[in-house]
Amino acid sequence: MKQVALLGATGSIGIQTLDVIRLHPEEFSLYALAFGRNLEKALPLIKEFKPEVIVVQDEPTKERLQSEIHHGQILIGGEGLIEASVADPVDVVVNAVMGSIGLPATLKAIQAKKLIAIANKETLVTAGHLVMQEAKKHNVELLPVDSEHSAIYQSLNGENKKDIHKLIITASGGSFRDKKREELVGVTVKDALNHPNWSMGAKITIDSASMMNKGLEVIEAHWLFDVPYDQIHVILHRESVIHSMVEYVDRSVMAQLGTPDMKVPIQYALTYPNRLDLPITKQLDLEEIATLHFEKMDMERFPCLRMAYEAGRTGGSMPAVLNAANEEAVQLFLEEKISFLEIEQLIERALESHERIHNPDLSTILSIDEETRKRVRFHLN
Amino acid sequence: MKQVALLGATGSIGIQTLDVIRLHPEEFSLYALAFGRNLEKALPLIKEFKPEVIVVQDEPTKERLQSEIHHGQILIGGEGLIEASVADPVDVVVNAVMGSIGLPATLKAIQAKKLIAIANKETLVTAGHLVMQEAKKHNVELLPVDSEHSAIYQSLNGENKKDIHKLIITASGGSFRDKKREELVGVTVKDALNHPNWSMGAKITIDSASMMNKGLEVIEAHWLFDVPYDQIHVILHRESVIHSMVEYVDRSVMAQLGTPDMKVPIQYALTYPNRLDLPITKQLDLEEIATLHFEKMDMERFPCLRMAYEAGRTGGSMPAVLNAANEEAVQLFLEEKISFLEIEQLIERALESHERIHNPDLSTILSIDEETRKRVRFHLN
Repeated sequence: MKQVALLGATGSIGIQTLDVIRLHPEEFSLYALAFGRNLEKALPLIKEFKPEVIVVQDEPTKERLQSEIHHGQILIGGEGLIEASVADPVDVVVNAVMGSIGLPATLKAIQAKKLIAIANKETLVTAGHLVMQEAKKHNVELLPVDSEHSAIYQSLNGENKKDIHKLIITASGGSFRDKKREELVGVTVKDALNHPNWSMGAKITIDSASMMNKGLEVIEAHWLFDVPYDQIHVILHRESVIHSMVEYVDRSVMAQLGTPDMKVPIQYALTYPNRLDLPITKQLDLEEIATLHFEKMDMERFPCLRMAYEAGRTGGSMPAVLNAANEEAVQLFLEEKISFLEIEQLIERALESHERIHNPDLSTILSIDEETRKRVRFHLN
Repeated sequence: MKQVALLGATGSIGIQTLDVIRLHPEEFSLYALAFGRNLEKALPLIKEFKPEVIVVQDEPTKERLQSEIHHGQILIGGEGLIEASVADPVDVVVNAVMGSIGLPATLKAIQAKKLIAIANKETLVTAGHLVMQEAKKHNVELLPVDSEHSAIYQSLNGENKKDIHKLIITASGGSFRDKKREELVGVTVKDALNHPNWSMGAKITIDSASMMNKGLEVIEAHWLFDVPYDQIHVILHRESVIHSMVEYVDRSVMAQLGTPDMKVPIQYALTYPNRLDLPITKQLDLEEIATLHFEKMDMERFPCLRMAYEAGRTGGSMPAVLNAANEEAVQLFLEEKISFLEIEQLIERALESHERIHNPDLSTILSIDEETRKRVRFHLN
């Protein structure tokens, strides 16, 4: 029986993690559940799974929760996330919180030698050097939850990393893949949220439309698999059937395929190196799909991807700036304060005005994150 | 340094095995080379690789060879194949001989605890039960050289066999894939030898056109991976880019992709579980290929595949009859003594007139093989 600490329970990944746990009561038990302020969504889950520890974002949410339940300990904020993650009974931490608040908890959980199922992109994008260093030091496995990284992880099963020739990350192209750049002027939030293949949260759906999501995945892949940027290739594959691939030195390419369902990578992260039944997921039917398409990725068409490669190659604090500027800009777009194309402009400006800091520590990363967000809002005004 | 015994050196697989050995002189050395009668093709190879042991089919070939070379021991026939395979210095036996003559050598090599790279289909099709029983008993790994089985083998790397839900073997469809059955009347040997994707020997190219090749592969896969026939699925995939797949219980599908080049699976069998550079093989370029197609396999259109499934499910001596009848019928077609469609008719008749023997031993298999071949020729007259 694996005891799970789930950080970010009310988000898309969190809900699907609970679907997986619900499916295998003999394998998994929810020890800790963390959410932000969405009590309406969290409460039935807390009542169903009865976690020992609950983490909420703030005191008011805690008070509201206390009047509703009579079991479990309630913790608050970043400190609460850490406490829940490093708790003795916890075997695996599923880190699916949004934003940089997930970072300290990941680091502490690694130090406590917990298995980490990582769905929090910021952790690796902004602090990949710190996280991987700690993971190596404490001999802890980081299991990706993203479908692309999970596909690579599965394609690396039983292989030697030194035999990798190239990682090939597939991109569906997002909701605007068939639009030219000039057609992106005036697209709405609603247009952007209409992803062709995957049903995901708002932030990641916008990131898919701008291709920043793929850029962040490239940086994550760089850290997770210790592969140079020149050996990470992105290919447009509109059906999202091949979730990603690894080309080896002998020209053999290993790939993981499936229907677009996050429950597969989530469960794999929880069961690795084993697998379990997943009857609630649709089987891949290639005969029905009939055709798979592949196209070259156009870096001019998708400047966010180009900027992500550049920030990754520059390294140091640059990816933290990329990430913070993107988060803030996407938020502004979702609030309908900027247009879709302004997202990339705000990011570009933030990157240009930042002087890279080599090998930043955690507090530097967090202050750069905060500073960048302010700057993005400031540029706007 | 791995010492290789190569059985069937002048065939397509043999030649490509030597390409691989030539590429990695620090990794592989050719200890033994076996061929039939094609001295013209074998002689330069013998002079280049200078094997300690050479096996030829008969005394006249031995005599012709002796007048040409002054190093190495020359052995003859089936006994020679066995002696070369079990020789002390040999680490791995690449069994790429054609026909049932490869079978006793495989069994003896397993008993001598040699690694076996198996390209000889007959071994598993006709005597899978014996071969796998011996492999299990002597804890010997059988490494497939076929691109499809190698793809499955690679897709199983690091996995548990119990987690397999389905094997998905891809079929290019062969040279007649776009012809209806009525259009097969009167097709010539030359038409049949014109395979769209792979450059292979004549027998296997005909088997691809009739889909018997896929049928034999299904039976091989059944034995090699210990998977019931109901869980082995064949799908038409004309580009031959995905070489085969494994679907797991969690709906995750692992696949191996590549350009159509037998050197990849050959080298993988020699290097497993590691990989080595293979610069002479073209890299897969999915952007250039652009589209992959998948279609349902039509058992009415390809009765040879249906018969193979049936023979496999019936088991016992039936697959040996299928194989022998097919070999003989293909030979008759290549000799232009029968039409293409008569191949399947001769096989069907052979299967119908055979009374299955349960769990046949080696001598029973060999005598059924001989008897079936005679019957196929006899039916013809």
